[in-house]
Amino acid sequence: MKRRSFLKSSVLAAASTAAAATTLSAPAYAKGKRRLKMVTTWPKNFPGLGTRASAFAKDVQDATDGRIKIKVYAAKELVPAMGAFDAVSAGKADIYHGPDYYWQGKHKAFSFFAAVPFGLTASEMVHWMEYGGGNELWDELSGRFNIKSLLACTTGIQMGGWFKKEINAADDFKGLRIRIPGIGGEVMKKIGATPVTKAGGEIYMALSQGNIDASEWVGPWNDLAFGFYKVAPYYYTSAFHEPAANVAAGFNLEVWSSFSASEQAILRAVAAKNFQSSLAEFNARNSVALNELVSKHKVKLRTYSPEIMTELADISADVVRSIGMTDDLSKRIYNSYMKTRAAAMEWSKIADEPYLSNRRLSKKYGKAI
Amino acid sequence: MKRRSFLKSSVLAAASTAAAATTLSAPAYAKGKRRLKMVTTWPKNFPGLGTRASAFAKDVQDATDGRIKIKVYAAKELVPAMGAFDAVSAGKADIYHGPDYYWQGKHKAFSFFAAVPFGLTASEMVHWMEYGGGNELWDELSGRFNIKSLLACTTGIQMGGWFKKEINAADDFKGLRIRIPGIGGEVMKKIGATPVTKAGGEIYMALSQGNIDASEWVGPWNDLAFGFYKVAPYYYTSAFHEPAANVAAGFNLEVWSSFSASEQAILRAVAAKNFQSSLAEFNARNSVALNELVSKHKVKLRTYSPEIMTELADISADVVRSIGMTDDLSKRIYNSYMKTRAAAMEWSKIADEPYLSNRRLSKKYGKAI
Repeated sequence: MKRRSFLKSSVLAAASTAAAATTLSAPAYAKGKRRLKMVTTWPKNFPGLGTRASAFAKDVQDATDGRIKIKVYAAKELVPAMGAFDAVSAGKADIYHGPDYYWQGKHKAFSFFAAVPFGLTASEMVHWMEYGGGNELWDELSGRFNIKSLLACTTGIQMGGWFKKEINAADDFKGLRIRIPGIGGEVMKKIGATPVTKAGGEIYMALSQGNIDASEWVGPWNDLAFGFYKVAPYYYTSAFHEPAANVAAGFNLEVWSSFSASEQAILRAVAAKNFQSSLAEFNARNSVALNELVSKHKVKLRTYSPEIMTELADISADVVRSIGMTDDLSKRIYNSYMKTRAAAMEWSKIADEPYLSNRRLSKKYGKAI
Repeated sequence: MKRRSFLKSSVLAAASTAAAATTLSAPAYAKGKRRLKMVTTWPKNFPGLGTRASAFAKDVQDATDGRIKIKVYAAKELVPAMGAFDAVSAGKADIYHGPDYYWQGKHKAFSFFAAVPFGLTASEMVHWMEYGGGNELWDELSGRFNIKSLLACTTGIQMGGWFKKEINAADDFKGLRIRIPGIGGEVMKKIGATPVTKAGGEIYMALSQGNIDASEWVGPWNDLAFGFYKVAPYYYTSAFHEPAANVAAGFNLEVWSSFSASEQAILRAVAAKNFQSSLAEFNARNSVALNELVSKHKVKLRTYSPEIMTELADISADVVRSIGMTDDLSKRIYNSYMKTRAAAMEWSKIADEPYLSNRRLSKKYGKAI
């Protein structure tokens, strides 16, 4: 609520100082045209995530008839991946495209807007944002850093990752060197593994040389491309740690406030379209890649036992709750998130889950004509 | 493919005859502003569906800075609900907002773009549309009727409906008078029930007077408002017949072709935003209403046994396949739909379903701070 009145006054402030525009991050105003810089946390043309940043930029250009043009920079082209947030916050770039858990060093609660273990799915994030108070809390948190964010991309459900040996009991994690970042890594540490940080491009070599015993990455589509199946035969499905990596388009707040109401409406619509399409794209391409991994590359799919999964969930409960204890804002974000989670779980149990399993009952359904 | 070249030539044709504009459905061009009429299949301000048509119109107006204004008509205000398609096809209105299974009398294959029993979920529809060839097939089918459609709203998973008596075996359907329209009704007929057609406003009276024994409607949010729990105590969850009622914004093709590329980009983005938001809204409000139905009104939730569900699924397999046998286009639509369905089911089984059930394993997760 407070956030809203601040946003409102900052719009007015931006309007009244528009002529000077000294705080604006160099968007060109020639002939009423805006030229904006989007810095991303992705390698150049990274499938699904980098390409989605480009799709967002193209949609904005199309919908504004070229009045807003966004130039997309891969990680390191303008700033390093982990420098994207600071660059936008300070006005050196206009927009970032990346998952907010990368900024947990700035504020721990950012993770709730990207992914937490056993948390909300991609669709449920929209439920939280629009009907559970998420948007207002995100505005409050990001606003502290001079940023206004929109959900703009998601990976959908990720996979648990690649393992050289099977995990048959919680004890098998002891001493395991696994590449897994962020909160998932904290959970792994508490169960006895050693979480290791590696950039995507370093994982294959580390696995093949035995420097690590396991690694998560994204899902079949991205994992297949890196060839992990050649060096780690067991593929653990259905990640506990990332029900979806949700990606923000984070705007410098003065830049956001300088847009007209219709430009903001276009940006909101384009962000929603790309969030929805990215989920569809990951689901589509993951199913094709999974098929190839299993039928062509004979990958062995595995899941943790319910006992191991329960232990991971109990540990995650503590880790996620401790994030909510950081400060007053974290507490409000945590409580709001958990309220939506409880509602979504109750509904999913009655609606989506039985439907999905019932759908498999008929052996004759869907035969080609 | 053929459809695309037709669309292209119709755009050119529209452009070359723009001055005359004799075929256009009376959109006003005063001062470059467009005034469009949207006819809907919904009662005035019908929650979730009628209100979503209005949200679509508002978003278009906002995003175009008022250049495109859409006036929304409830059913019967301009044409009856079932007349919306013909009105747009003939250019008497510009856009309809309704689920395409209402037009199965025009062409049986329209049902695939709204809902078929044991078919695609809302998210999977986007997968089919954008990554499985659905959009091109929809253009081909709708184009035959001078219409271009976009997915613009969805209910998400619906409920099985309200029953006066429990269904414990397939035989219990024999002689049962159930209000259920469309393909679900055909399936009910084959299992021995008598499907009955009733408008939403007539259901409560029919149930209370004993003219019908059961009725499906939408989901908890809409069902609670009608008070069905007072006259039918058993609520069968997770509909087999409508995994989601997907709603089109169907444009008169000349009107669609007369839009500039940027206007079309805005309309696509706004449609996607509203499809995504409608799913979130139904999920959010359904979970609240379900809670009230169970805890306050003591509604008895029921599901069909796996044996009954399997029989319904096998019957549905035949009914849906027979729709695919209608003609060559139906066959291509059916085969394309089923290919996406198979891929989506394979992925969901590995990814979403285990995640959703694993998420319930921890009893301590999510405790409020």
